[in-house]
Amino acid sequence: MLSTMQDVPLLISRILVHGSTIHGTSQVITWTGEDEPHRRSFAEIGTRAAQLAHALREDLGVAADDRVATLMWNNSEHVEAYFAIPSMGAVLHTLNLRLPPEQLAWIVGHAADKVVIANGSLLPLLAPLLPHLKTVEHVVVSGPGDRGLLAGADVQVHEYEEILAGKPTTYDWPELDERQAAAMCYTSGTTGDPKGVIYSHRSVYLHSMQVNMAQSMGLTDQDTSLIVVPQFHVNAWGLPHATFMTGVNMLMPDRFLQPAPLAEMIEREKPTHAAAVPTIWQGLLAELTARPRDVSSLGQVTIGGSACPPALMEAFDKLGMRVCHAWGMTETSPLGTVARPPAHTIGTEEEFGYRLTQGRFPTSVEARLTGPGGERLPWDGESAGELEVRGPWIAGAYYNGPDAEPLRPVDKFSEDGWLKTGDVGTISPDGFLTLTDRAKDVIKSGGEWISSVELENALMSHPAVAEAAVVAVPDDKWGERPLATVVLKEGATADFETLRAFLADEGHIAKWQLPERWTIVEAVPKTSVGKFDKKVLRRRYAAGELDITKL
Amino acid sequence: MLSTMQDVPLLISRILVHGSTIHGTSQVITWTGEDEPHRRSFAEIGTRAAQLAHALREDLGVAADDRVATLMWNNSEHVEAYFAIPSMGAVLHTLNLRLPPEQLAWIVGHAADKVVIANGSLLPLLAPLLPHLKTVEHVVVSGPGDRGLLAGADVQVHEYEEILAGKPTTYDWPELDERQAAAMCYTSGTTGDPKGVIYSHRSVYLHSMQVNMAQSMGLTDQDTSLIVVPQFHVNAWGLPHATFMTGVNMLMPDRFLQPAPLAEMIEREKPTHAAAVPTIWQGLLAELTARPRDVSSLGQVTIGGSACPPALMEAFDKLGMRVCHAWGMTETSPLGTVARPPAHTIGTEEEFGYRLTQGRFPTSVEARLTGPGGERLPWDGESAGELEVRGPWIAGAYYNGPDAEPLRPVDKFSEDGWLKTGDVGTISPDGFLTLTDRAKDVIKSGGEWISSVELENALMSHPAVAEAAVVAVPDDKWGERPLATVVLKEGATADFETLRAFLADEGHIAKWQLPERWTIVEAVPKTSVGKFDKKVLRRRYAAGELDITKL
Repeated sequence: MLSTMQDVPLLISRILVHGSTIHGTSQVITWTGEDEPHRRSFAEIGTRAAQLAHALREDLGVAADDRVATLMWNNSEHVEAYFAIPSMGAVLHTLNLRLPPEQLAWIVGHAADKVVIANGSLLPLLAPLLPHLKTVEHVVVSGPGDRGLLAGADVQVHEYEEILAGKPTTYDWPELDERQAAAMCYTSGTTGDPKGVIYSHRSVYLHSMQVNMAQSMGLTDQDTSLIVVPQFHVNAWGLPHATFMTGVNMLMPDRFLQPAPLAEMIEREKPTHAAAVPTIWQGLLAELTARPRDVSSLGQVTIGGSACPPALMEAFDKLGMRVCHAWGMTETSPLGTVARPPAHTIGTEEEFGYRLTQGRFPTSVEARLTGPGGERLPWDGESAGELEVRGPWIAGAYYNGPDAEPLRPVDKFSEDGWLKTGDVGTISPDGFLTLTDRAKDVIKSGGEWISSVELENALMSHPAVAEAAVVAVPDDKWGERPLATVVLKEGATADFETLRAFLADEGHIAKWQLPERWTIVEAVPKTSVGKFDKKVLRRRYAAGELDITKL
Repeated sequence: MLSTMQDVPLLISRILVHGSTIHGTSQVITWTGEDEPHRRSFAEIGTRAAQLAHALREDLGVAADDRVATLMWNNSEHVEAYFAIPSMGAVLHTLNLRLPPEQLAWIVGHAADKVVIANGSLLPLLAPLLPHLKTVEHVVVSGPGDRGLLAGADVQVHEYEEILAGKPTTYDWPELDERQAAAMCYTSGTTGDPKGVIYSHRSVYLHSMQVNMAQSMGLTDQDTSLIVVPQFHVNAWGLPHATFMTGVNMLMPDRFLQPAPLAEMIEREKPTHAAAVPTIWQGLLAELTARPRDVSSLGQVTIGGSACPPALMEAFDKLGMRVCHAWGMTETSPLGTVARPPAHTIGTEEEFGYRLTQGRFPTSVEARLTGPGGERLPWDGESAGELEVRGPWIAGAYYNGPDAEPLRPVDKFSEDGWLKTGDVGTISPDGFLTLTDRAKDVIKSGGEWISSVELENALMSHPAVAEAAVVAVPDDKWGERPLATVVLKEGATADFETLRAFLADEGHIAKWQLPERWTIVEAVPKTSVGKFDKKVLRRRYAAGELDITKL
């Protein structure tokens, strides 16, 4: 029996029309480095998004589900592109300006982007790439920057403001299928080619509602959100869409992501919410320590991307900025969990512990843990397994070109369609996730898992240890066993027996998890973003390049 | 181009599983009239809902989309039925225990209900009806009440607790189409047969997310919601589903809806939120005035069903209970608007004015005003038209039996599928709705609309007037003109010229809206629920039974 409800699709154009009418006076405030930031009302964003859509269709020939890429900072023009492109039926492709150029070129080609809208300040990055972007026919430039860099390029170059000028200020947004592609992001995997994730109108709409639910970020038109997380990073965690849904003002840093301007924009514009990765907040904290400012407007600071060190969380608490952990990834749109402690712990000693977890799953994100043998593990806060998730804003495949079947690699998707996150952790009976390792780094020993991160943290708390990396190495009896790679502090000494005993006594590591294989190295190899490069360590071990002591 | 998102349906079973695991310790607290209320955790609700589904399927033969009716107060068993019935794929049909018995019988027959789950305390209502309920095969009785009343009835009678006992505590909830029927309510129209509205899993799920958005009710597991609005009244405004989504405790009054027990449950259980129609709050205010209690836990009181008188709102403000208007109807699930004032008015004189409106539309409810000639009217806060709405939780038709096409009466649905609400009002540029009349009562004069309610309120503010009803009567020149029907206070006198001048001078009524036709009556005829019965007045006028003075 069918319902008698109206069959109304969940479309991004609805969010645009709603935000630009009912919340027409809310603002996108873009930092300019000048005395005054640039302010544009949601109503203006609405008319300019309509003009942009007309320009893309009529001047640039964007049709059907053509891909329109953006190479832009967080600013009001980028918000206009966010709404115009999917609302007209095309697909927004946000380019990560921090990727190596050759990866960017590969991604643009794979997505077959037809248009790139770029900030003028990013032309030094774009111009040398252009000869390699075979699918790109048009470049639209917005904001200050040297257009001369594009001279001689084999594309049509347009000025953003010029193509908008004089266009109609309304657009008859089409009634699309809500499952149609709206936006795409590529994951920057460390192995293999980048993988494309395509969000639908439905997934963006539902995700925006979740972000605004009181148990998640709970934003309303009384809020101003400082969106530091880049718009090319999982749609700035969905915030531009979510804020338009409830009239939240957006404070956009553009290219001014350094601690000093961030501190200034917080003090001057008094945002009530902010979102960024921990590194940004580390820098901000140092700045605020050196030059104190009033940042107490920030009642809620969402931190994701990686775990927030407890010391940083406590330091921000003291400044009146309350940090709230969230976990997600490109494949999860990204809201997977939010660490709001359960009601009964508020004001108790337990509260802080809950804030250090990755958080609790919302209704629309189903979660399960899979153990080393593929078995389902209980939510007991102790059994560690790979996290798998399912839900209407979770990827079930990767894009593989317009004419190809979507990719479903077996290491990323289960047979029954769940996303394998590659993260290993525990879930408490009340649904709080604690991540302990990456699945590729965990040590699979005799059917049980040993967390490399837990061993590393315990080792690094020893006074003689500067850095420590633990990787899995093959073992005839146990399948895999941990290898401890230690960098000693300058002038410090410590023998392996002592370190091993320290792990057991002070680190509370179970006996069967203690490493037998030990080595001293000068430095732990790192990836380009500063993470331990465990692939290199495993390769060196396999090649016999490390001097191993077996206890 | 399709997205790569998972295709996961929005189902009520997901809300049930989520609430009963991640929020397993949250509670449904049911008032019993005894010293202690009855407390049941969400985890228990989850296992008992599974048991109920097994019992309905295996013992009572409920299959496919069979309708299972409830004739129950607000209590934990009713919550179990709310989740078990739709989750198993059947359709929950909540019966309004305040309807006249013959209407109830008609509704049960029309829906072809197979099972009725009834509270024991309601058997005196159900027992005499049973011989007329031809489709009902099973009655399940829950809670105290005289089972002897069912003796001799031609149905199988079951004890709720007995059929649950020993059943498995989990159920393999089916993966349904999210557009499938989940629950149904009949509107109690004053004319014609009641009309059935069928909610889908999708509409209930989306509506629950909206209720929990910070701009609507914004509830979390830190809240306890006192749900006074009956579960048979538009699904208790969607609160049982919404609370399960975020772990909000439910405080359920069962049959104890009188002011004294309500005041007691507020003082003892300290709910943070409550939802009810104004009449309930009028009674509670009188009780609190007579016997003061601490009710300040109630930071948010949602009032819907009809407008809250300003004096009542101010009185509650003084008690620390903050009233928030909401507007909706059975056909809108019901959340249509919520009156949270815009951020820039908070703390200003404008704020209270916004709180007196019906409120602002959320993203998922599109609204438009249609004027007397079918034209679209602007959102200028002045142009009054009939409100039409569109959205994923708005009805697009009425149920007309399992084998019949849904009904789409032209006075209820526009040609392009919008719901005609039958309410007349204005919308401000920032999307706040102010209702001024019902469409059937508005006076259509020369292509413009005159609000009967506005004239009545102005007349009733005259010291000599006890009651006044204004209805449309035919007019050769203008189509329709207002007829003012006045009841004078005992011993008071007033001539019509004076009252007319009063309307213009004190009531600020435009000259062209002033009534020419006047009459004095002993009393205004009323409907069974105490509203002015304007049909009767129009009939009496047409029959020449009224003594009319024309000015």
